[in-house]
Amino acid sequence: MKEDFQVTPWEVKGRVDYDKLIKIFGTQPLNKELLNKLERISGRELHMFLRRGVFFSHRDFDKILDDIENGRGFFLYTGRGPSGPMHVGHLIPFIMTRWFQEVFNVNVYIMITDDEKFLDEEKMSLDEVRRWAYENILDIIAVGFDPDKTFIFLDTEYIRNMYPLAIKIAKKINLNLVRSVFGFSGDTNIGLTFYPALQIVPTMFEKKRCLIPAAIDQDPYWRIQRDLAEGFGYYKAAAIHSKFLPPLTGFEGKMSTSRPETAIFLQDDPKTVRRKIMRYAFSGGQPTIELHRKLGGNPDIDVSFQWLYMLFEPDDKRIKEIEEDYRSGRLLTGELKEILIERLNDFLEQHRQRREEAKELVHIFKYEGKLARQMWEIIYE
Amino acid sequence: MKEDFQVTPWEVKGRVDYDKLIKIFGTQPLNKELLNKLERISGRELHMFLRRGVFFSHRDFDKILDDIENGRGFFLYTGRGPSGPMHVGHLIPFIMTRWFQEVFNVNVYIMITDDEKFLDEEKMSLDEVRRWAYENILDIIAVGFDPDKTFIFLDTEYIRNMYPLAIKIAKKINLNLVRSVFGFSGDTNIGLTFYPALQIVPTMFEKKRCLIPAAIDQDPYWRIQRDLAEGFGYYKAAAIHSKFLPPLTGFEGKMSTSRPETAIFLQDDPKTVRRKIMRYAFSGGQPTIELHRKLGGNPDIDVSFQWLYMLFEPDDKRIKEIEEDYRSGRLLTGELKEILIERLNDFLEQHRQRREEAKELVHIFKYEGKLARQMWEIIYE
Repeated sequence: MKEDFQVTPWEVKGRVDYDKLIKIFGTQPLNKELLNKLERISGRELHMFLRRGVFFSHRDFDKILDDIENGRGFFLYTGRGPSGPMHVGHLIPFIMTRWFQEVFNVNVYIMITDDEKFLDEEKMSLDEVRRWAYENILDIIAVGFDPDKTFIFLDTEYIRNMYPLAIKIAKKINLNLVRSVFGFSGDTNIGLTFYPALQIVPTMFEKKRCLIPAAIDQDPYWRIQRDLAEGFGYYKAAAIHSKFLPPLTGFEGKMSTSRPETAIFLQDDPKTVRRKIMRYAFSGGQPTIELHRKLGGNPDIDVSFQWLYMLFEPDDKRIKEIEEDYRSGRLLTGELKEILIERLNDFLEQHRQRREEAKELVHIFKYEGKLARQMWEIIYE
Repeated sequence: MKEDFQVTPWEVKGRVDYDKLIKIFGTQPLNKELLNKLERISGRELHMFLRRGVFFSHRDFDKILDDIENGRGFFLYTGRGPSGPMHVGHLIPFIMTRWFQEVFNVNVYIMITDDEKFLDEEKMSLDEVRRWAYENILDIIAVGFDPDKTFIFLDTEYIRNMYPLAIKIAKKINLNLVRSVFGFSGDTNIGLTFYPALQIVPTMFEKKRCLIPAAIDQDPYWRIQRDLAEGFGYYKAAAIHSKFLPPLTGFEGKMSTSRPETAIFLQDDPKTVRRKIMRYAFSGGQPTIELHRKLGGNPDIDVSFQWLYMLFEPDDKRIKEIEEDYRSGRLLTGELKEILIERLNDFLEQHRQRREEAKELVHIFKYEGKLARQMWEIIYE
């Protein structure tokens, strides 16, 4: 099946059709029925990501809900490849993961894949990757995880505890498989070739079902996991998949560190935020004020509106007003951008404060918290 | 170049022509000049393995001798894949390594490749490999290494200390290269594919030249190391290569655990030794006593004689007598076999005693010896 978009763990091309992607990847839509059940079981209002379809697809999330109902429980696993600064879109899986942790009081494992990024980025040294790892960990901690129920680890540091299980997994994965799943070729280095085995290990950190909130492009890893897990006496990993926050410049591809105009980074100051939104945020408005007042704007293709809808305006009533005002032409593109700039800068200001506080907590999440201390005692075999 | 024998790290086929192998592998003969220099520098009689060409080939051994002369020093690295019991042939690199350690008082690193054997042996569990690792370590310690200058480590245990450097090495090795050097194919698992990077790490344990005494079939690993080492600021590994102790059954291939009649294992009791030698040791003698007395035997193809020559009769005068007596027909095949049986059983009896004592020393070599304690503090990056 040839589509005019493409989604792999390393690349997103074109404008993603998420309904088609569900069919291509063979996942399930995260439908109303499941969400209602989640709301009922949790006794909490659904997170805006769930109310608004930011997480739109899943594997075995129904089984996670059963496990919660039956008291078997579950645990959460997500991660970050530390090859550069994090942008606002990178926070989506972490915010979602934190919400599940808060609601169900479960353990969270966050893998910082310094090995993978070093192996994958031709020009990056391991030291550089590790510096980004530290910076990214601050951003992740700032999301608000429970320090006694969250373990953040670097692959190169935690490897001794994972390697025996990783080689058991690796023994079941041959070169033909990784070639077809990840497109590895003769030029691929032998470190990157081994890495998928390691990424699977944390799905077996507990003898419960693992729920992975992640962007949909990571799905190929979990397909291999799901083929192998039961042979190892573990559960197939469950996942919920998020859409990509669209690049500022429009809906093609995903935000990219190498093209800074496409993204707002967590370290961008208020002036930079204003400049980028004003200059680059793709508009669904009309070419002139007169035409806009007459014909109205199109929020479906307007990146400022989409960012508010997906991430920065949690109030359902308010977002509906904004949508209607924009569509009717009452709200101009410039005004819409001002709303986003204000929300974004509030969000980043709060984030920066929590990020400062996170500096004292890195050691807790990596080594000294209750879960972290337990994890350093366990060798996975 | 198509030969009627084949030598790879996983297989030896046919009768190996060692002179041709030097040409095929592109190594250097370990010639008289080098050996004389070694004798002069060491002030010691050369070990029988050197006097008799058991070690016959090298890479950069001349540079090791220069390093000794100039006071730069060197270190020793060898290893063992613990997939089964060790036979007498397996001891050859260890005995050679021990001799160099004793003569030059240098550090020895012994890698126990539990990961590789687990990944390579379809049916073997990691627990089984680890049990063999323990048994093999006893046999290795019994050779007599210096507990404060020798570090014995299992890959799966020491991985945290090696992995960062291993991925730096791995980043420089692509699938095309391991396919051509090791013959990896689409069926090869992704663990085994990564392993060559790990085997190279100990050649960089010190900022000195590393000397690797090993059977010639391990040479492909060091070819890759030699292409990469200087880019990492380390020396190209030097190596001296041994011939294979021929299988009891004749000169084809090498001794094999899966065909116990081809080998004497270090645990074989005196009765088993006698039975195997009498029944299987390929003879260079004549079909009848009369013919033997008349025509004489051929020690060049007689496995009993070769075993005495290569490993079990260190006395040069005595081995010369045996050779002459056998060639002239004075010594019968049965008598030659009796000589070997006696030598072999003496050797194994001593080995068993030292192996018993080794049980108390495993912890020293792995964790508590002077060198071992230092090594657990170092992370190689």
